[in-house]
Formats: sequence, C-alpha cells, structure tokens
Amino acid sequence: MIKAYAAMEAGGALEPWEYDPGPLQATEVEVEVEHCGICHSDLSMLQNEWGVASFPLVAGHEAIGTIAALGDGVSNLTLGDRVGLGWQSSYCNTCAYCMTGDHNLCPEAERTIIGRHGAFADKVRADATSVVPLPSSLDARTAGPLFCAGITVFNPLLQFNVSPGARVGVVGIGGLGHLALQFCKAWGCEVVAFTSSEAKKAEALAFGAHRTLNSRDADSISSAAGSLDLILCTVSADLDWGLYLSTLRPKGRLHFVGAVMQPLQIMVPQIMRGQLSVSSSPVGSPSTIAQMLEFAARHDIRAQTEHYSFDDINAALAHLDSGNARYRIVLSH
Amino acid sequence: MIKAYAAMEAGGALEPWEYDPGPLQATEVEVEVEHCGICHSDLSMLQNEWGVASFPLVAGHEAIGTIAALGDGVSNLTLGDRVGLGWQSSYCNTCAYCMTGDHNLCPEAERTIIGRHGAFADKVRADATSVVPLPSSLDARTAGPLFCAGITVFNPLLQFNVSPGARVGVVGIGGLGHLALQFCKAWGCEVVAFTSSEAKKAEALAFGAHRTLNSRDADSISSAAGSLDLILCTVSADLDWGLYLSTLRPKGRLHFVGAVMQPLQIMVPQIMRGQLSVSSSPVGSPSTIAQMLEFAARHDIRAQTEHYSFDDINAALAHLDSGNARYRIVLSH
Repeated sequence: MIKAYAAMEAGGALEPWEYDPGPLQATEVEVEVEHCGICHSDLSMLQNEWGVASFPLVAGHEAIGTIAALGDGVSNLTLGDRVGLGWQSSYCNTCAYCMTGDHNLCPEAERTIIGRHGAFADKVRADATSVVPLPSSLDARTAGPLFCAGITVFNPLLQFNVSPGARVGVVGIGGLGHLALQFCKAWGCEVVAFTSSEAKKAEALAFGAHRTLNSRDADSISSAAGSLDLILCTVSADLDWGLYLSTLRPKGRLHFVGAVMQPLQIMVPQIMRGQLSVSSSPVGSPSTIAQMLEFAARHDIRAQTEHYSFDDINAALAHLDSGNARYRIVLSH
Repeated sequence: MIKAYAAMEAGGALEPWEYDPGPLQATEVEVEVEHCGICHSDLSMLQNEWGVASFPLVAGHEAIGTIAALGDGVSNLTLGDRVGLGWQSSYCNTCAYCMTGDHNLCPEAERTIIGRHGAFADKVRADATSVVPLPSSLDARTAGPLFCAGITVFNPLLQFNVSPGARVGVVGIGGLGHLALQFCKAWGCEVVAFTSSEAKKAEALAFGAHRTLNSRDADSISSAAGSLDLILCTVSADLDWGLYLSTLRPKGRLHFVGAVMQPLQIMVPQIMRGQLSVSSSPVGSPSTIAQMLEFAARHDIRAQTEHYSFDDINAALAHLDSGNARYRIVLSH
C-alpha cells in the first residue's frame, strides 16, 4: 500500500489515504519520496479548475526520492539512486518526438497527477524514462522545484537557442520567475525583471536581474521599448500584451510559460514589421532536465524554499494559495 | 522630370502627373521602369486604408527596369544593369540589422511608396542597396511580382530554416499564395493549399500543392489535424485561427504574411502543449531577395501574370480590386 495525502473532492482538505498501486510494471520504478515541492498546478488540480481531476486525488509533481523498486525491464537505474520526478511521468518512447529527444511533446505523455497518483505520498511510481538522476552536488531538500518550475523556464533557453548575448525580460517573480532570473543570468543574458510588487524588486535584483520594471505600469514597460530579445512570461494574469510586444527588438519572442487563460489579442501589423513571434511551451524532456540539473549545479542555481512537514500539508497549501510563499514550498518526510 | 501616374486624392483615379525628383543623391540610383507589378498594398495606399498616404501619390513597388543614372557613391551597379525594386527603397546601412544582413528589419528602412514616389512611372529612384540585379535567366516581364509577393512568402523559409522535410500549409491562393505553393514545392516540402474557391483547387495543384483543403470548412481543415509544421497565411481575412493551430504538429508555426487587421485570438493552453509559435514577417532583405531570385531561376518559379499597358493602369487596378486577377497583374511601358 502507498500512504498518501488525498483530496476526496474538489477543494476539499487533504487527508491521509492509502491505495494499492498494483503490480509494478516492467518499465516502471517506484520512488520513495523524501521531498516534494508544491506547484500552482497542484492547487489548480485539487480545485479542479481545469475540469480534468478525478477524486480521490493525490497531487505532487516536484518529487525527490530514491529508487525503492525497479520493474523487470528497467536497466538504466539502480536501487537507492536519488532521482527527481516532475510534471510528466511516462512517455510512449517510440513516437517521432520521443525518438528525437522531445519526449515532453509526446502525444501519449502522461502527467504525474492527471489520471494517476502523484508524490504527496510516501511513494510514487513513474516510467523509468521520466525520472532523472539528481547530481550529488545538488541539495535534495531544495531540488524538487527544479523538476517543474525550473525546467519550465530553462527549457525555452535551449529550445530557442537563446544566445548569452540576448536581453531577456522575465514577467512575474514567483515560483517560476525567481528561477528564470537565476537561469537567464547564469546563461549570460541581460535580465530585466517585470514585477508589480515593490517588495520583490530588491529580491529580483538579488536573484540576478540587472534591473526591474513595474509589470503593470505602462510608462515603466515602455521605457524598455525595442530592447528585448525574449520575454519569458511566468504569470497567469491577463496583461497588456501589445505593450509587452513593443519592448521586443526585431526577431524578438514573447513566450508564455504560465497558463494565461484569457485569449491573447495579437495584432498582426505589430508583429509583422519586426518579425516577432508569440509562443508557449510545456516542461522539458528528460534529456533537457538532465542538462538543466547540470547547469544548476554548475552555477549554484536553487529555488528559494520554505519547508513544511508532510503532516502540515494543508497549512502549506494554504500558504501557497495566499500568494505569500517566497518562493517555493517543499514538503518533507 | 519623372512622368508618373498619380492619384490626387484617396480613392481617386490615377492620372498622368510629372514631378521633379531633384538632384540624384550619392547613394541612389535611378531606374528606368520597364515593368511593374500591382500589389494589394498599392490599392491600400491609393485608398489610404492605413492612413499613411500623402497625395499626389505614385504607387508601384514591384518594378523591373534598367539603371539609368548612378549616384556619385554607387560602385556596385553599372548603367544599363537590369534590376528589380520592391517594397523597401532604402536602408540606413549602419544599424545592427543592416550590419547583419537583416536590412528588411532596419528601423530606418523607407518604403517605396510611403513618403516617396513609386514605380507607376517612367523612372523611379531608390538607394543602391535596395535594388537587386535580375538574373538573366528570369523573364523581366513576369519578374516584378517576385520583388514583393515572392520575397514575402520566400523569406520565412529562410528565416525559420524550414526543412525540405517539412509539411507546409498555404492559406489563400492569390498573388502571394500561388508563389508560396511554387516555392514550397521546389523547397522539397509537402504542400497543402487552403482555399475557399472551388475554381482555384485545380490551379493550386498545378502550382505544386499535393492536396487542397477548404479554408472555410471546419471539417476539411480538421482533416489535417496535427499534421503541419508551418502554415503560411497569405490572406487578410479573419479566419478561425484556433482551428488552424490545431492542424500544426508539435513545434509548428502559424505564420502571417498577409495583413490581417482583426486581432488574433490566441489561447495559451492551445499553443503550450505542442510548443507552437504564432509569428509574422515583412518582406526580405536584399540578400534574401538575391537568394530568392537564384532559387526561382533554378526551379523555373514565376508569377502567373496578366498584362496591361501603363496607359490602362486604371483598368488594371479595377481588375485587381475585383478579386479576379489570376494571379498577378503587371504593367508595362
């Protein structure tokens, strides 16, 4: 039996709940969970905001733990290996995307907490190709958030071959944004943080931003007109995207890694003259996660975390929901 | 004096009109116009749809002619050279974009018919860097449209490093679209033509499309779900872009080369999962125009044209405005 914390209904408090995961599949591993970050997507799923949750629901998809059991067909991992598990927990491993290293774009990719049980538990299962060994130089206690928040903001740097010479804007300094600032700074870029929080400005500079602008002030945003090569938008708020597009240089890209739910209103003449792109991406592939971990270890990039015991999981979720987490919450056994 | 055909007011008929272009600038050339294509942008300017026209207005920006005069500082062209002139007629030649071959993105680029006089005339002037020699193997009579319609659809193939292995959709089979089909076919791509015109389906196949779909029928468009790497949208109509996005494969791109004036409504969750991009671009740089001309000559790509004498310019404009041109109109002296 796996001992988990589950919501019995949308919006319900989490409570201890056990389930029988059945026989371990040949390609699966079972991970004994040590730590697990909490992501806004966990809240969205627990509140069934996207309409795809089924209950009881075990959330949790920023897990760090050790391999406790191996399926018969798993040869790339060993019992006791410390690994991480993020948003995706299995791939078909045979489609055109998996076969070219883009597992994260596999149409059959399973999500760790959609239609299966996640890592708010003592154990979690996943396909062996979806867990990635944690470099020993990374702190297990703070590494969980790299597997969702971290890879989500790192992935575009690789996907779009962002040059260290580029100027990057990061919109929203939260769980994703505070990691984006660190990655972009270490990548060699000039980094501009857009935040509406006065309190976060100094922290953004400490995370690596060269300067900050007010994300909700038109004059402040306009001061960056025509200067940025890439904007990484980590918020889910509906901002004035035309104004943000005006901060891009020719060939610039406005890229969304936060789930903005309102339609973007994009004017073709505005993006035509400078050959601008508007795009979005999900988390990265296991190969990209491995590169991200190596890069994070090399540059001492880590989530700024607050820590709770799994026993206090409801208090931790409430703290995240309050918007006051600085900047990522990690649960530990 | 230059003998031109000018509109005296927005929407007015064109009439013979002479103007004194003044002394030839050191970096300019004067081209004796032999032929000039008519583009929808000429109509838009003559009707002042964009609010940037000043009258008398001499339109015309798909010119083929010979060098009749050279500024003192021009050393890369010779009297009598046959050249073409498109949408852009000068660059600063010193900004970061000009200095890296992206003259078409120069913030100081001048447009041939905005704030200056175009090629519906016996002569037209332009900066020497903005005219491109016509390969002798290309037919001067039909080459004009390559300098605006052609480069506009060819440029994205180069800018986005489109693979010959890609599958490309072309939306709208008109002046731009019929050239896009030819370029994409010769580029090695699988080509799908989206058109709402039954009559154009057979012609689209003849231009190189492997198959056609109805651009206004949801079931027809949906039959291509998840299959395309790139969509080149040449229309200015407001279509169901969410439906077109659904025809893209992961990493696909919906690219606009037509001036859609209504805001695009883009849903982030739809473009996130497959890492999709929405983008646009203007015409290409002189270097890209030269590559386009070489490619067109190699693959015998040419505009399908209808021909009028400059004396019949008003009839030619009316024919274009009727939507019945197949597919590009060229005026000749």
